[in-house]
Amino acid sequence: MSDKSTKKSLVTLLSDFGISDEYVAVMKGAIAQINPMLRVVDITHQIPSQNIAAARFCLMNAFAYFPEATVHVAVVDPGVGGKRRAVAVELAQGFLVAPDNGLLSGVLSQNSEIAAVELTNPEYWLTSYPSTTFHGRDIFAPVGAHLASGVSLQQLGREINPESLVKLNLPSCYRKDNSIIGCIQYIDSFGNLVTNIPQSYVKGSSWNLEIRGNIIKSQKTYSDVQQGELVALIGSHGWVEIAVSCGNAQIELGVNNGTQVRFF
Amino acid sequence: MSDKSTKKSLVTLLSDFGISDEYVAVMKGAIAQINPMLRVVDITHQIPSQNIAAARFCLMNAFAYFPEATVHVAVVDPGVGGKRRAVAVELAQGFLVAPDNGLLSGVLSQNSEIAAVELTNPEYWLTSYPSTTFHGRDIFAPVGAHLASGVSLQQLGREINPESLVKLNLPSCYRKDNSIIGCIQYIDSFGNLVTNIPQSYVKGSSWNLEIRGNIIKSQKTYSDVQQGELVALIGSHGWVEIAVSCGNAQIELGVNNGTQVRFF
Amino acid sequence: MSDKSTKKSLVTLLSDFGISDEYVAVMKGAIAQINPMLRVVDITHQIPSQNIAAARFCLMNAFAYFPEATVHVAVVDPGVGGKRRAVAVELAQGFLVAPDNGLLSGVLSQNSEIAAVELTNPEYWLTSYPSTTFHGRDIFAPVGAHLASGVSLQQLGREINPESLVKLNLPSCYRKDNSIIGCIQYIDSFGNLVTNIPQSYVKGSSWNLEIRGNIIKSQKTYSDVQQGELVALIGSHGWVEIAVSCGNAQIELGVNNGTQVRFF
Repeated sequence: MSDKSTKKSLVTLLSDFGISDEYVAVMKGAIAQINPMLRVVDITHQIPSQNIAAARFCLMNAFAYFPEATVHVAVVDPGVGGKRRAVAVELAQGFLVAPDNGLLSGVLSQNSEIAAVELTNPEYWLTSYPSTTFHGRDIFAPVGAHLASGVSLQQLGREINPESLVKLNLPSCYRKDNSIIGCIQYIDSFGNLVTNIPQSYVKGSSWNLEIRGNIIKSQKTYSDVQQGELVALIGSHGWVEIAVSCGNAQIELGVNNGTQVRFF
Repeated sequence: MSDKSTKKSLVTLLSDFGISDEYVAVMKGAIAQINPMLRVVDITHQIPSQNIAAARFCLMNAFAYFPEATVHVAVVDPGVGGKRRAVAVELAQGFLVAPDNGLLSGVLSQNSEIAAVELTNPEYWLTSYPSTTFHGRDIFAPVGAHLASGVSLQQLGREINPESLVKLNLPSCYRKDNSIIGCIQYIDSFGNLVTNIPQSYVKGSSWNLEIRGNIIKSQKTYSDVQQGELVALIGSHGWVEIAVSCGNAQIELGVNNGTQVRFF
Repeated sequence: MSDKSTKKSLVTLLSDFGISDEYVAVMKGAIAQINPMLRVVDITHQIPSQNIAAARFCLMNAFAYFPEATVHVAVVDPGVGGKRRAVAVELAQGFLVAPDNGLLSGVLSQNSEIAAVELTNPEYWLTSYPSTTFHGRDIFAPVGAHLASGVSLQQLGREINPESLVKLNLPSCYRKDNSIIGCIQYIDSFGNLVTNIPQSYVKGSSWNLEIRGNIIKSQKTYSDVQQGELVALIGSHGWVEIAVSCGNAQIELGVNNGTQVRFF
């Protein structure tokens, strides 16, 4: 067992289960039954129902901030009980446990896989006869708990080629004339519009974004403009972002995921 | 003190306090003051305001998944400050601390009580002069923390007959001709309709549900039907359930708690 | 290092980040990277966006219930990236880490500061080059984690005069003829109306409140009136409060923060 394995002790949970029902607590109970010493951190359970793209975005943005060897259990799983694979992946900085439906592809696009397995060994499930509707409780949370408690990836099931994991790729931004054409890939709960243009494309400190005919100048931070004004900046996620100082850019502009933006 | 008592170290919290105010945090602060080593898991704090039936359902469904000797503190308490009793109950698999208003009766219908007490000993409260409006902070959370830290049930107050605990019984389903007549007992945040027909009533793998004139065929899982179609199945709670694949059955059918269903 | 410093091990978080995005989890990841043994309790992350007054109220009411030496990290920060100071404060009963925008002034009005510093030492930040938009992740949470792990206040930056911390004072209630004139300072998620009249102003057990022409008699608790009726009482926060038994006083009365009340 590697040094990394012995350090595992933090499990994160991400889902679309909401926090009104007992579903998330049941996963935490299942984890505590396996190892009551594990610490559990919620990433979010408010992913819009069955929205794999939103889950992919949140997990990708959270992953780098957790300690090495954290086990991330992510369950947005419209295909539960069907033919989609359940998988676990080992990376240099941590472990992922999830349905193989593209949810992991954001993290995987930014990290190198060491190994991947399909979860075929019921020894590490809550029961050998899992429900067909709640693999978060019956498979994913228990497997995550075992992985964080020292079980190796290889014990969890048969090895698969990491290249075979389902990818959910966003439309890329592209250069056109002297501009970069991109789109909104995520809108956070402040109404900030996160584009798919990464920080690394931005040269210099003065640039502009056009969205729906509005031209917005770049600033360093929200408070560089008056309250209520539109501002473009490099967001904390590391993507070009549009916000309204002390306001809500989604409501202000009436835009949605996928709305085109032009960077120049 | 039994072996079980020495293993207690997990406290769960369930309430209708919401998570917008500081009420839940204040209960956790009160617990940490008593024993900073206790682990606390939220079941949910989004029970609809003062809805004892919903709290009863959530606690009943979560209970079995927690480690033996977990202390469950549940506070949906429209009668706070009035004459309702505050109680603690010991079961083979754990402990319950709550107002005696029926909230516990789901768990109690599925487990045998070992003993019950009324919380009459202020030594284990936050203060000997509790507020009349927030016994979660002043009585229930502190008692739960002490119980999880090794205090025995009997120290908490005078013993009462477990049979005297308030019961909140749902309308039962019943057989009529070749059908079972039941109703919706709970609607989760996905809009899935949980009936009061238990898994044990279901014989064979092919059956039907009728609701508001719609006849829905049984399947194994959500993805056995096309997206947007109605599906009937055994839900993860262990009850017959109606869902819409990748959709919301409550919105689709326009039904509510109590709506009748026919199983045949 | 004082005894208090060696006991620190609990960190609370309060913000307006909501729980739909990964922002709160990212702060917890940053804390776990610094010290995986720290316990973290959420006060709330549902403060209305950029509402410093609501954050002030919640933190003030939660503070006293936490163990001595708890580190409270509070981030409602409309001025992030601008000129507002980032500060940490030591009190007899705990530590505060926040932007200096008035958020702390409720706790400070009820406790004596021992010392305060401006967070000028990047050694305790996540990075020496913090983002201009997310100091919760880059500065406040890491500083809180270090403080809870034994770093002294003085190591975090240059000492400042606690008197210089920004104050956000509410309109006070005042005596007029034989009445006290106050207003609603907070409405909780039950719709209970918390006034700015403190418990200490109330003499005797029988008094009245007038709001929008309604005269409401004092009671001990919610259940002293019939369901649906208005009731005035000393709320669990320690302020005079208006509620509807098993109902929502905000909806019933159609009032808001700032609405005047008369106590007599």
